[in-house]
Amino acid sequence: MKWHVTLMIFLVVSMALVSAVTAEPSPDTEACLECHRTIHPGIVADWERSRHARTRPVDALEKPEIERRISAASPPESLRDVTVGCAECHTLRAEAHSDTFEHSGYDVHVVVSPADCATCHPEERAQYEDNLMSRAYGNLMENPVYRNLADTINGVQVYHAKENATRLKDPDEATNAVSCLFCHGTRVKVREFITRETDFGDMTLPELEGWPSQGVGRINPDGTRGACTACHTRHGFSIEMARKPHTCSQCHKGPDVPAYKVYDVSKHGNLYSALKQAWDFDAVPWTLGKDVSAPTCATCHVSLTVDSDGLVIAERTHRMNDRLAWRLFGVYSHPHPKSPDTTVLRNRSGLPLPVDLDGKPSPEGLIGAEEQEARRNAMQGVCRSCHGDNWVRTQFERLDRTLETTNAMTRAATEVMASAWEQGLAKGLEHQDSLFNEAIEMKWAEQWLFYANSTRYAAAMMGGDYGVFERGRWDMSLNLQEMIDWLEVAERLQKERQSE
Amino acid sequence: MKWHVTLMIFLVVSMALVSAVTAEPSPDTEACLECHRTIHPGIVADWERSRHARTRPVDALEKPEIERRISAASPPESLRDVTVGCAECHTLRAEAHSDTFEHSGYDVHVVVSPADCATCHPEERAQYEDNLMSRAYGNLMENPVYRNLADTINGVQVYHAKENATRLKDPDEATNAVSCLFCHGTRVKVREFITRETDFGDMTLPELEGWPSQGVGRINPDGTRGACTACHTRHGFSIEMARKPHTCSQCHKGPDVPAYKVYDVSKHGNLYSALKQAWDFDAVPWTLGKDVSAPTCATCHVSLTVDSDGLVIAERTHRMNDRLAWRLFGVYSHPHPKSPDTTVLRNRSGLPLPVDLDGKPSPEGLIGAEEQEARRNAMQGVCRSCHGDNWVRTQFERLDRTLETTNAMTRAATEVMASAWEQGLAKGLEHQDSLFNEAIEMKWAEQWLFYANSTRYAAAMMGGDYGVFERGRWDMSLNLQEMIDWLEVAERLQKERQSE
Amino acid sequence: MKWHVTLMIFLVVSMALVSAVTAEPSPDTEACLECHRTIHPGIVADWERSRHARTRPVDALEKPEIERRISAASPPESLRDVTVGCAECHTLRAEAHSDTFEHSGYDVHVVVSPADCATCHPEERAQYEDNLMSRAYGNLMENPVYRNLADTINGVQVYHAKENATRLKDPDEATNAVSCLFCHGTRVKVREFITRETDFGDMTLPELEGWPSQGVGRINPDGTRGACTACHTRHGFSIEMARKPHTCSQCHKGPDVPAYKVYDVSKHGNLYSALKQAWDFDAVPWTLGKDVSAPTCATCHVSLTVDSDGLVIAERTHRMNDRLAWRLFGVYSHPHPKSPDTTVLRNRSGLPLPVDLDGKPSPEGLIGAEEQEARRNAMQGVCRSCHGDNWVRTQFERLDRTLETTNAMTRAATEVMASAWEQGLAKGLEHQDSLFNEAIEMKWAEQWLFYANSTRYAAAMMGGDYGVFERGRWDMSLNLQEMIDWLEVAERLQKERQSE
Repeated sequence: MKWHVTLMIFLVVSMALVSAVTAEPSPDTEACLECHRTIHPGIVADWERSRHARTRPVDALEKPEIERRISAASPPESLRDVTVGCAECHTLRAEAHSDTFEHSGYDVHVVVSPADCATCHPEERAQYEDNLMSRAYGNLMENPVYRNLADTINGVQVYHAKENATRLKDPDEATNAVSCLFCHGTRVKVREFITRETDFGDMTLPELEGWPSQGVGRINPDGTRGACTACHTRHGFSIEMARKPHTCSQCHKGPDVPAYKVYDVSKHGNLYSALKQAWDFDAVPWTLGKDVSAPTCATCHVSLTVDSDGLVIAERTHRMNDRLAWRLFGVYSHPHPKSPDTTVLRNRSGLPLPVDLDGKPSPEGLIGAEEQEARRNAMQGVCRSCHGDNWVRTQFERLDRTLETTNAMTRAATEVMASAWEQGLAKGLEHQDSLFNEAIEMKWAEQWLFYANSTRYAAAMMGGDYGVFERGRWDMSLNLQEMIDWLEVAERLQKERQSE
Repeated sequence: MKWHVTLMIFLVVSMALVSAVTAEPSPDTEACLECHRTIHPGIVADWERSRHARTRPVDALEKPEIERRISAASPPESLRDVTVGCAECHTLRAEAHSDTFEHSGYDVHVVVSPADCATCHPEERAQYEDNLMSRAYGNLMENPVYRNLADTINGVQVYHAKENATRLKDPDEATNAVSCLFCHGTRVKVREFITRETDFGDMTLPELEGWPSQGVGRINPDGTRGACTACHTRHGFSIEMARKPHTCSQCHKGPDVPAYKVYDVSKHGNLYSALKQAWDFDAVPWTLGKDVSAPTCATCHVSLTVDSDGLVIAERTHRMNDRLAWRLFGVYSHPHPKSPDTTVLRNRSGLPLPVDLDGKPSPEGLIGAEEQEARRNAMQGVCRSCHGDNWVRTQFERLDRTLETTNAMTRAATEVMASAWEQGLAKGLEHQDSLFNEAIEMKWAEQWLFYANSTRYAAAMMGGDYGVFERGRWDMSLNLQEMIDWLEVAERLQKERQSE
Repeated sequence: MKWHVTLMIFLVVSMALVSAVTAEPSPDTEACLECHRTIHPGIVADWERSRHARTRPVDALEKPEIERRISAASPPESLRDVTVGCAECHTLRAEAHSDTFEHSGYDVHVVVSPADCATCHPEERAQYEDNLMSRAYGNLMENPVYRNLADTINGVQVYHAKENATRLKDPDEATNAVSCLFCHGTRVKVREFITRETDFGDMTLPELEGWPSQGVGRINPDGTRGACTACHTRHGFSIEMARKPHTCSQCHKGPDVPAYKVYDVSKHGNLYSALKQAWDFDAVPWTLGKDVSAPTCATCHVSLTVDSDGLVIAERTHRMNDRLAWRLFGVYSHPHPKSPDTTVLRNRSGLPLPVDLDGKPSPEGLIGAEEQEARRNAMQGVCRSCHGDNWVRTQFERLDRTLETTNAMTRAATEVMASAWEQGLAKGLEHQDSLFNEAIEMKWAEQWLFYANSTRYAAAMMGGDYGVFERGRWDMSLNLQEMIDWLEVAERLQKERQSE
C-alpha cells in the first residue's frame, strides 16, 4: 500500500473518531436523561440506539446532497452542534404548542409535531402536507358520508324488540380513538393542567384528550396535521423500520386496504421474506439491485432510489400518490384527487365524493390524463429496473382492466341497492337516512369497500388470491347474488305487508 | 492490561472450559442416544443444541437467584451432576405414569408431564396449575354449555330432506383431537401394551389414546394437567422460542382469540418484526430497553423483566392472568375467575357461565375490584417502562370503554336471539335444545365469540383494524342487522305456517 | 499442525481460487450484460449473486452424485465450461421458441421454459411434467366444470332490474391473467413482432400475449408446460428461497388451499419462525436435524433429505404428490389421480370429476390402495425422523377420519343443493345451467372449496384453528344450517308464486 493511501485512511479514521467523540447530547438533553433514564428506560434505550443520538445536524450536512437525511439547508444555529435528543425536539416552538408546560425549568411539550420535525426535515414535511394521509382525520370526520359510516359502526346499537329494530347511540371519543381514528389519527387537545404527586415531588402536567395517537392524520396541539411517528416509530425513528413493509401493515392489512396482504404473497413479498437478511435497509440513497433485490412498499411509493451508477430512478417523496395514476380505494376507483383535502370534492348529486353512485366520475377535483401519465411513468421507472417493457406495459393494462371490471361489479351492486331504496325496501339518502345502517346497505358497502378494493390491490401488486377467493372476484359475485336474493325476499315481504 | 485482570480472565475461561468438559450426559442417557440418534435424528439433534444438553442442575444453581432458570432449591441428588437428557426426564416418577414400560432395561414413559418438569421447575409448575390454561380440557369438555358448542361443530350432520333438517352424530375422539382439543389438549390414556417386531427385536410398547397432543390442558397418563411443550417446544425447550410471539399464534390467531393477529399489526409487533434480529431473547432476567426494545407476548404476560439498573419491573409468572384485570373472552367480558376451573361458576340462571345471558355478571366466582386493581397495576408497570402516565391511563380507559360497548352489542344480539327463542322461531334452552345448532344461533355466537372478542383484543393491544373492519365493530353491526332481518323473515314464515 | 495438512489446505484453497477465477460468463453473456447491466440493474444484480453466476456445469458435475444440483449426466459441450448466464438460457433451442427474435446478433427468446432448464436439470423437469401443477392451465380451463367456475367469477355481471337478475359477460384475457391464471399460469403466445424506437436504436421485439406469467402451469411459446420460476424465482433461482414456505404461500394461502396458513400456526411453522436463522437452506442433500430442525413445505413434499449418517430419508421429487396418499382438494377428497391431466377423469354422471356429486368415487383414474400405501410410507419416513411410531400412525388415522367427516359434511350440503335443484329453486346441470352462478350454489361450493378443504389441511399439517373457527368445522356447520334456512324460505316463496 502506498504511504499516502495509508495516511489518508489514518486521517479519515481519526476524523470519524473525533467526530464521534464530539457528537454528544446537549446539556439540556442530559438533564432530561438524568431522570428519564430511570423512569422510562425503554424510551431512552431506543433513542440511544438511534441515528439521532449519534448525529449532529452539522455532521448530517457534510454528506453529499444525495446521501443527506436532512433537507434543511441550515438548521438553527443552536441545534447544529449537538445530537438530536429529548430537549432538541420536545422544547422546540414552545409557544406554538398548547401542550407546553413548565417542567424542571424547561418549557416542554408532549406531542412532537411535523412542524417540529420540519426544523431539520422541511421538504419531507411539505410533501407530507400534500399527502392524503395528513388529512386522514378530516377526510373521514368532516366528510358527512364517511362520518356517517364511522358513526354507524362505532356507535352502540340498542335493540327495541317491539319494532325489531335498533336505535343508534352516538359513539364516544374513546371508541373512535381505538376504532377508525386509530389509523386516521385523533384530535389531540389539552383538557387541563393537573398537579400530581410524583416520586420527584408535585408536578403540573397537561392532561391530553385524544392521546395517545400515532394515526397518520393526527391533529396536534400546535394545530398541525400528521404524526411522523406513524411510520418512523419513536424513539428510534429508524429508516430501516419505515422501509420494511410491516410498518405499512399497521393500517394496510384490513379488508378495506389489504395492500400488505397482497404484497406478502406476491413475488416481491416472497423475495423480501426469503432474502431480506442480506439487504441494506439503511442506505441513502437506496441502490436497487445492490441494497435491495426486490421492492418493499417504500421502494415503489416513497424512497429515493438510484441505479448502480448512482443515477436517480425515483426521487424521494412523502406525498404517497406521486407515482400513482389511480386511487384504487373508493366506491369506484378514480384518478387521484388534486387536493389532499377530499372533503372539497362534489359529485353530480352534490355528495362529497369524487364519483356519482352510478359510477360517473366528476373530473373537476381529480387529476387529468396528463398528470396520470406522468405519475404512471414515475412508477414504471421503478418497475423497469427489473422488468422488460412488455412486462411493465401489460401489468398496467391489466390493472386498468381490473379497475373497469371492479367498477362494473360495484355498479351492479349499486343498482340492486338503488332498486331497494326506490321501492322503500331500505332507507337511503332520499329518506334522509344513513347509507350504512341496514344489513343490505352494509353488504353493498362490502362490495366496494372490501371486495372491489381487494381485487384492485391484487391486480396492482400481483397477489393472486386477493383477487379471487380471498375477498376478491368470488366474493363480489357471491355478494351480488345474495343481494339479489335479499331483494326478492324483501319485495315479497313488502307485498304481503301491503296486502294485510 | 493489568496482570491481575489477565489472570482473572484466564481463570474464568479455564473454569468455563472445565465446567463445559464435565457437563456430560448420564450413562443412562448415553444408552438412549445410542439407538435413538439413528432412529430419531431430528429429536436428538434438537436436544443436542438445547440448554438442557449442556447444563447440569448444579451449574444452574450457581447463578445468582435472579438469573436462575430453575426454581428448585435442591434438585434430587441423582440428577445434579449430569446434564438433562432423555433418561433424566423419561424415567422420572416411573410408578406415577401409567404409560411406563420396560424398555431395554429401563422403566421409561412416553409422556413427560408438568410433574416431571417440576423436579427442577416447581414454581413454574405451581403457577401453571393455577393458570386457566392448565384446565383447558375440563373447562371445555366438562362445562355443558361449551361441551355442547364443541359437539355441535365436531359432530357430523346428516341431512334429512323431508324435514329439511339435520341430525347430529356425536363426534369421535379423532375429530375432537384435531379440532377443539388440538389447543385445549386431549386426555391421554394407555389403551393397551402391544408387542411389535422392530429392527431391534420384539418390543412391548404402550399404545396411547389421545396421543399426540401438545394442547395446553392435556390430561397426562400420570393424571396431571398441562403440557409444558405447548410453548417450550420439545426437544429444544428453548426460552427464546417461548418468548417469540409465533409460539402464542399456535392457538391465538383464530377469530375467537385473535391476539397474535392484533399484536402483529400493532406498533409493538412492528418493532418486533423490524428489529428482533438485534434483540436477546435468551437473557434471564430480561432487561427492557437493553435486551428488547418492544414487548412480545411473554414480556407483558409471563417474563421476569428488569430495568437497566436490574430492578424488577415484573416477576415471572406462569399464571397468565396475573397482570390482567379483565377476562376479555366470553359471551360478555368480565373480571377474571378466581379459580382456574371455570366449571364451578354459576350465573343466575344456573348455567356454568360467569355472566347471565342478559349481561349481568355473577360476582361470586370472580375476582373483586381490589384484585383487579392490583393486576392492572402489575401490567401498567411494564407499560410505564416506555410510556408516560397520561398514555397508560388513557390506554386502559379506552379498553374499559371497549368492554362496555362490546358487551352492549352482545346484549343487543342476545335480545334478538331471546325474541326468536320466545316466539319459537328457534329452539333454545327452554326447549332443551342446543344454543349453537341453528344458523341464527351461530350468528349470535359469532357476535361475541368472534366480533366482540376481536374488538376487545384490538383495544387491549392496539391493533387497529381488528376493532373495525377485520371482524370488529363493522361485523358486530352488520351481524346484528342481519339477525334482525332474519327475525323479520322468520316471523313472517311462522305466521304463514300458522295461517295454513 | 502437520506439514502435509498445511499443504493439503493450501492446495484445496488454491484449487478453489483457480476454479473461481475460471468460472466466468461466456462472451455471449458478457455481450448481454454490457447493455442490460444498465437497463435492468435489478435483474443483473440478482443473477450476479446466484449460484448460476459462479458455477459452470463442469464444476457441478464434479460433486458426488448425492450433492449434485444438476441431473444431466453430460450437459452440451458448448455450455460446460462457462457459467450459466443470460445467453446460456435465453438462446437455447432457438428454433423451438416462437418468441425467438434477432437481437443484437443473437437469436434470443424471452420466455425460458422447462425444456430449456432441462438442458441441465432433465430429471426435475421429467418429474414436474408428471406433476399436477404442470397441467394447472388445462386442468382448470379445459375441464368444463372448473372452467365454468372460473368464467362465473371472472366475468362481469350486468344487473337487469326488471328480472332482478344478472347476465354474465365472458371474462377477458387480462382478467383471467390476474385472477385464476395468476397461479395456474397463462397461455403465452406471440401476438406480433413490433419494431420500436429505443435508446439503442430501432429494435424488433416480440409482443407477447398472456405475459407476464409465472403460474405453475404456464403454456410457453415453445409449447411446453410449466414455469420453473414459479418457485425458483428469477434471476437468482435460489434453492434457499424455494425451500422456504413463503414461496408456497404465493398460491397456497387462499381459502381454497390454505396450506401455508395451516403450516404457519403449526409447531413446524413455529419452529421455522423461531429458529430459521440458524438453519442451512442451501445444503444438498438436506440433513434433517443438522441443517433443519423442523420441516418446511419442501422438506416433506420435495427435497432430497438424509439422516446424520448420510442415509437417504426421502428422494428428491418434483412430482409433488409422490408422498401423498390422498388428494385433499376437491368436492370430495379422494385418492390422487394417476395422470396429471385431470380432464380425463369421468365420474358416473359423466362429469370430468373424480367423484360423483353424491360422494361415490370413480376409482378408474385414481391410484389404488397399494400405491396409496407406498406414498403414505414415503411421507411417514420423513415424519419418523422426529416422531415415534404411535405418534405417526395416529396422526395419519386422524387425517383419514377427517377426510371421512369432511366428505360427509360436503354430502349433507350437496343433498340440500340437490333438493333445491330438483324443486327448481335453483338451476343446476339438469337445467343446462352453471353450478356456480347463484348465491345458494356458491354457498354450496364454499362448503367444500373453503371449509372442507381448510379442515383437511388443518388435520394433515396440525394447524388447529383452520379446522375449527377459521373456515373450519364451525363454518361447515353454520354454512349448512344457512343453506337449510335458505331452502325453507325459497320453498315458501315458490309456493306463493305458484298460488298467485
